Amino acid sequence: MNDFHFYTPTDYIFGKGAEMQVGALASKQGARGVMIVYGGGSAVRSGLLGRVIQSLDEAGIAHCQMGGVQPNPVDKKVYEGIAICRQAKADMLLAVGGGSVIDTAKAIAVGVPYEGDFWDFYIDKVKAEKALKVGVVLTIPAAGSEGSGNSVITKVETCQKLGLRAAPGVLNPVFSILNPELTFTLPPFQTASGIADMMVHIMERYFTNTPSVEVSDRLCEGVLMAIINEAYKVKQNPRDYEARANIMWCGTIAHNGTCGVGREEDWASHFMEHEVSALYDVTHGAGLSVIVPAWMAFVARRNPGKVAQFARRVFNVPQAEDQVAVAMEGVERLREFFHDMGLPVNFRELGVPRPDIDRLVEGLHHNKGELVGFYVRLSAKDTREIYESAL
Amino acid sequence: MNDFHFYTPTDYIFGKGAEMQVGALASKQGARGVMIVYGGGSAVRSGLLGRVIQSLDEAGIAHCQMGGVQPNPVDKKVYEGIAICRQAKADMLLAVGGGSVIDTAKAIAVGVPYEGDFWDFYIDKVKAEKALKVGVVLTIPAAGSEGSGNSVITKVETCQKLGLRAAPGVLNPVFSILNPELTFTLPPFQTASGIADMMVHIMERYFTNTPSVEVSDRLCEGVLMAIINEAYKVKQNPRDYEARANIMWCGTIAHNGTCGVGREEDWASHFMEHEVSALYDVTHGAGLSVIVPAWMAFVARRNPGKVAQFARRVFNVPQAEDQVAVAMEGVERLREFFHDMGLPVNFRELGVPRPDIDRLVEGLHHNKGELVGFYVRLSAKDTREIYESAL
Repeated sequence: MNDFHFYTPTDYIFGKGAEMQVGALASKQGARGVMIVYGGGSAVRSGLLGRVIQSLDEAGIAHCQMGGVQPNPVDKKVYEGIAICRQAKADMLLAVGGGSVIDTAKAIAVGVPYEGDFWDFYIDKVKAEKALKVGVVLTIPAAGSEGSGNSVITKVETCQKLGLRAAPGVLNPVFSILNPELTFTLPPFQTASGIADMMVHIMERYFTNTPSVEVSDRLCEGVLMAIINEAYKVKQNPRDYEARANIMWCGTIAHNGTCGVGREEDWASHFMEHEVSALYDVTHGAGLSVIVPAWMAFVARRNPGKVAQFARRVFNVPQAEDQVAVAMEGVERLREFFHDMGLPVNFRELGVPRPDIDRLVEGLHHNKGELVGFYVRLSAKDTREIYESAL
Repeated sequence: MNDFHFYTPTDYIFGKGAEMQVGALASKQGARGVMIVYGGGSAVRSGLLGRVIQSLDEAGIAHCQMGGVQPNPVDKKVYEGIAICRQAKADMLLAVGGGSVIDTAKAIAVGVPYEGDFWDFYIDKVKAEKALKVGVVLTIPAAGSEGSGNSVITKVETCQKLGLRAAPGVLNPVFSILNPELTFTLPPFQTASGIADMMVHIMERYFTNTPSVEVSDRLCEGVLMAIINEAYKVKQNPRDYEARANIMWCGTIAHNGTCGVGREEDWASHFMEHEVSALYDVTHGAGLSVIVPAWMAFVARRNPGKVAQFARRVFNVPQAEDQVAVAMEGVERLREFFHDMGLPVNFRELGVPRPDIDRLVEGLHHNKGELVGFYVRLSAKDTREIYESAL
């Protein structure tokens, strides 16, 4: 087990009607002016935004807002938000939405007190050490951004989708409100994409060469089993509160550090997917359900150990002498699960029958270096083979 | 799943030599004067206390100290500590030790700014809402106090061993330093008792009637499996860093809330044990390895569901139609595990061949009310039967 630092200072409020506490929570954080960030019209139509504003009003907190954040959030909305926030002199960001909204709010939070271009933080030119506080009302369990100190933004001009990992505590939301009822109306495809995203957050922690990490292995496997079990229930009945609640909390702990302590992580398949969604604007989770099994099949033939353990413990694949065969059976069962959820497992099903693989590979290694990943170090030849195997 | 509030603001620093960061961490918390609390002479003899003082000196932080805290910590040391702390005008407590030391430090932390008797907080006369900051250098993985907002103290005069559960964030340590190397020299019995304690912290969250708690069920089961796996390795080689590291982190997440979200908990067996260790001053974990299987066997015959699930998922007991039989086989395997670790599973083995059961039952229901526990509500007749079954 590697040495580690674990710090998750977010105050999580979980349950029915929890969004009505937002005013009191912002007040407890000393907020005087809040900038609400949200996405499409669903937060308005569902009445959620109205309830949030009512709660802020009751707490006597001033507020301004910016809507229109899209999936795969872009730099343009961040610049716009920084200007609005500065003008309104807001001292807290309140993200009402899913990962794209939260990541945009975090980018604004780190950009407002910084004199230069906020993009500096995403290209590692400057380390993020100061930010406005961020609060969250979560509506889509997927990205895990409600419990993490990270943010992913796409720069349109250069077609770069890059992530910022702030120092512990700098960008972790000060509070996150999780009401599973808010997810009842998520369309099945979006629900499934979120499930793929949270599963992969765990898996990119799980596939490691760090020895003797039994406790975090078991945590990862346990959360994955819970997700799979509850996903079928949600598919059958999207208004199943209990299943939605389990899925929602899984999405948070998948990415707030709980499952990843003391181990080298490997985010190669996330990076490989970022190239795909930056270029073709596909849903991130659906991109992952294509890339991840392809990546797993590739690494399983070179380093089967952890993939075989995943197969045995998560998907109950019987133990056998041939570890590669055990591992590959696990990959197959993962693909079946994704299919059961209505997710694509190849580029054709993703709606990108002829991806520009040259450009994907070039972009990936331009952004992430000559070798990508740790569980198996991947050269451009390897990542090309993985992309091609997913056609 | 029940609504919940989850807040674990402790900054965990885990790894080799981590205690040398204590000065920097206290400084980051704004501490000007630190009161060090420790137990017996081992912290002095091992050189740990010297290293801690060196680190504080290097950070320019003043310090005073109080040693001599014993297992099953008592009110006398708390009163003594409050006086020392007030006189030295220390603004932070630093516990260097295990659960008894940390719980004493927490009692001092909440007692110093309070004008009345600190015991008021333990008999629920006053709610703990204000306390000095507490930092921890952990030497015994067991109590989980390094990540919790709780403290258990025994009042000698009345022979009451009672717990304080402060509001979230009030008594959670601001930082906890976890160096598995510090546990190499723990004697086997103390190691095993710590393992029993952390397992029971999980089990008292696990045995619940709250439906649809798949994710926290899986977290509980995963951590239990990891503990059992690593416990045998530690027994074989007490200087196995990796196994010690896994056990140490398990002890923390067993009790910092991670495993208990959204479910009614049942602390009946902890309360039943507290009566035993208050009266006979036995090691808490050893008391638990006697009480818990007896409690489980009793509840399994009345409400087998969760005990059978424990048997299947944690101890691989094969599924069968008779859920009570599956559950009882799980209890048996737990007893075997405790025996393998060198722990007692009945009063005779605990060294208390003829416990005063009248007094145990009377004390328990005096402190905890007519009915104790939730998974099965226990009357005085029931708790008597459980104590007697453990003879």
